[in-house]
This record gives sequence, structure tokens and C-alpha cells, in this order.
Amino acid sequence: MRLSYFHSPDRVPAEGMADAAVAIDVLRATTTMAWALHNGAEAIQAFADLAQLDAAASAWPDDQSLRAGERGGQKLEGFDLGNSPLAVTPERIGGRRIFMSTTNGTRALDRVRSAPMLLTAALVNRSAVAQRLLQHRPEQIWMVGSGWEGAYSLEDSLAAGALADALLEGSGASLLDLAGNDETCAAHALWQQWKDQPEALLRLASHGQRLQRLGDHDADLACCATVDSLTVVPSQDEPGVLRLS
Amino acid sequence: MRLSYFHSPDRVPAEGMADAAVAIDVLRATTTMAWALHNGAEAIQAFADLAQLDAAASAWPDDQSLRAGERGGQKLEGFDLGNSPLAVTPERIGGRRIFMSTTNGTRALDRVRSAPMLLTAALVNRSAVAQRLLQHRPEQIWMVGSGWEGAYSLEDSLAAGALADALLEGSGASLLDLAGNDETCAAHALWQQWKDQPEALLRLASHGQRLQRLGDHDADLACCATVDSLTVVPSQDEPGVLRLS
Repeated sequence: MRLSYFHSPDRVPAEGMADAAVAIDVLRATTTMAWALHNGAEAIQAFADLAQLDAAASAWPDDQSLRAGERGGQKLEGFDLGNSPLAVTPERIGGRRIFMSTTNGTRALDRVRSAPMLLTAALVNRSAVAQRLLQHRPEQIWMVGSGWEGAYSLEDSLAAGALADALLEGSGASLLDLAGNDETCAAHALWQQWKDQPEALLRLASHGQRLQRLGDHDADLACCATVDSLTVVPSQDEPGVLRLS
Repeated sequence: MRLSYFHSPDRVPAEGMADAAVAIDVLRATTTMAWALHNGAEAIQAFADLAQLDAAASAWPDDQSLRAGERGGQKLEGFDLGNSPLAVTPERIGGRRIFMSTTNGTRALDRVRSAPMLLTAALVNRSAVAQRLLQHRPEQIWMVGSGWEGAYSLEDSLAAGALADALLEGSGASLLDLAGNDETCAAHALWQQWKDQPEALLRLASHGQRLQRLGDHDADLACCATVDSLTVVPSQDEPGVLRLS
């Protein structure tokens, strides 16, 4: 296994594709996806483009679907859900397909949708994703952060480092052998430095600060910072559609 | 003071300019610049473009100039010097102007040459640069890494984190107050994690591995990893020209 981390979708190499890709958007898309599937959603269908989301959702029965849309940290008008992991309760989403578009998270997924194995990870399901990768041992693994509008993201790097740490421990490999690029080594150091206070790092991160300024996001931040609270592994099983597998 | 770090020249904001900028290329341009000025070079004149370097150097007396050129880690044919900090001895470069172009380091300098205060930093002169900034307390400080052909660089991030750490200590500010972006926080964590073994991190970095594969770079790596071995602060005092000030 060689594990590379790309800070944002636009840093993913233009040529080629990894054997496995892991999309990460800790605040909050991939945290919310993990919670939604854990709580019984039929599937998550992700869209970078809102018009495509509308077209796909309209073709689905109303009582079996929900629209989740977020831009700039806030729920889009007319949508059923925003991007909060606390809103995807079993009562609300059980058995339904969630048609989802977020500012940043869905772009990362879109960039690596041709990978033979495509998973989503956040702090909440870090160990579960690591276990899945250790079962399959793909030769090349790419982790893709979401960033904020293409910029580097501290919280996605923390999760990338947390996943790297679990893979190091599970495989017995050295960092020199496992790390496919410098970004992976730096993410691992970030995790080593902050693993005992992940919520403090999320609050220090620029996107965490943005959510705090919007107000009413304390419970979301605490939820997104809880490491290994879930055992689900969201996995793409048809283009753009994530299910538990 | 607000301290932001950009991983490579292409990540520097297109609009505006900081009050002070710090160009970083630990392996090896800004390490070599610090050693050259410490050892008595009259000035370093940096060029991203080789044709411009040739034109400027040709207008200078032969016995008062040297050409330093590196691409891909190796000295350019026909040049007096490559990019090794060990080659810029007092005997070789004392009193001379060095006309210099390197794969990555000179691009970072070029990108921020309009900053009112422009310094170069490496691990070797980290504390000296921090002291200079603490004397002036510029409101906005941008650190610019060089990267390898635009990619993220582990060794430049280590130096950025080392500089951030010295500024935190010298100013008494918190990381939340000082850090202008997520990259600064991550660089600081990298430094915290690796400060006791900087040479090991340089050897883990992809560019450090590249130099090891080229062979004969052990002394260079050790030199570049020595924290605070110099007290010089290279500073731009006319466009593209660095001197001690």
C-alpha cells in the first residue's frame, strides 16, 4: 500500500487513478454521510451541480427521497436538509435516498468517482475505513481533502493523518514505506500533535471558525470531532451513489 | 502580526500584498543564500529566468561575479556554482555578486518581490528572521514555500512552522491570534512533532529522497537541517537583489 493525500480536488493528478480513493470533508459532508447511512438512509447520491441534483431527485418518489443542499455553511432555501450530521435522524431519513450537494465535499467525491474503490471518511468512521482498506490492501490509495473553495483544510488533514496512523498501525509499515507524498507525512504529524484534542483543532480551523461565527454549530463541531463513534463505511456502488457495503 | 503560510508560489493570493514576505526553500536555495551572505558575498541577485540571468551577469566584471544555476537538483552546465550551501565558501565567493537561478526557490522570491519587506528564511537562520520580524511587527506577514514544481514541500513547511514557533514565543500571542490561515497551524504542528530530529524529516521529504538518490548530498542535508547555525537575515534592498541589512 502507498498512501497519498491531496489537499483539495484540484491537487489530484490529472493523469491516472488510484486503486482506492477516500474522499474527506470533516466539516461536514462526509461526517453527515456516515451518520445518514448509519441511521438507515437507503443511499446518498452526491452532486456537484444543483441542476443535476434537481433533475435526479424529481424522478424519485417524494416519500422516498430528501434533498440536502448547503452553500457557505448554510442550508439552501427549499431543501429538506442542510449539511448537519445531527439532522439526519432515523425518523427523518430512514429508508430514504438523500440527494446531496455541498459547497466543497461533493466536489472531492466527483473528482475521484472513477476509482475502482471509492470510500468516504471523516473522524467519526476513521478506524472503520482503515479496516476496510487493510482487508483489501489496494496498491495505491489516494485521500482527497475538500478544502474551502480549493484551499487547504486543517480538519480534513487531521482526518487524513488519523487514517494514515491507523494504516501504519494495522500494516506494520513505516511512514517512509507507506507515505506516497509529503502531504501524507505532514497530515500524520498533525494528527500526532492534536489527537488528544480534535475538537480544539476543529475550532482553530478557518472553517470551524466560520461555523462558530454563523452561530448554533457547537453540537455539530462536537459531533464531527468525535473519533470512531461509528463503524460504517460509505462506499460508491454505482456512479455517484454511496451505500454501506 | 498575522502570519499566513502559502505552500508554493501559485497559492499566494492573486490580489494584494503583505507588509512583509518571507521566501523559504530549505533544500536548498534559501539555505545557500544565507551561507553565501554570511561568507561575504556582496549580494545575491535572483532570477526565475535563465536568459535574464545571463544578460545581467554579462554586464558585471568577471572577477566580481559568479553564476549559480541549478535544475532538478544538479548544477547547470557552464555555471560556476550549483545550489549547495557547502560550495559558497569565503575563498570562493567573498566580495562577489552571485547571479542565481534554482528550480523552485527563485520563483517564490519572484512572486513576492513587491512586498515592502522581503526576507529569505531557512532552518539555518530561523531565529534571526524571527527577531527581525519582531523588531518591525508587520501587520500581515506571508511565508511562501517553494515546493517542487508547485507541489507541497515538507521541508519548507518545517521551516515555516519553526518560524511561527519563534514568533509565538517572542510575541506571546496565541496560535489562534497569530495564525492567518490553516497552513500556518499545520506547519506549526509539523515543527512541534519533528523539531528534535529535523534532518530525519528532511530525509523523509520527497525532495530529500531525490537528493539522496542523486548521491553525495549527505553533507548538504546535514547543513540544511541545522537549526539556527547562522544569524544573517538576507533582505531585498533593490528589486531581485538580496543583501544583509
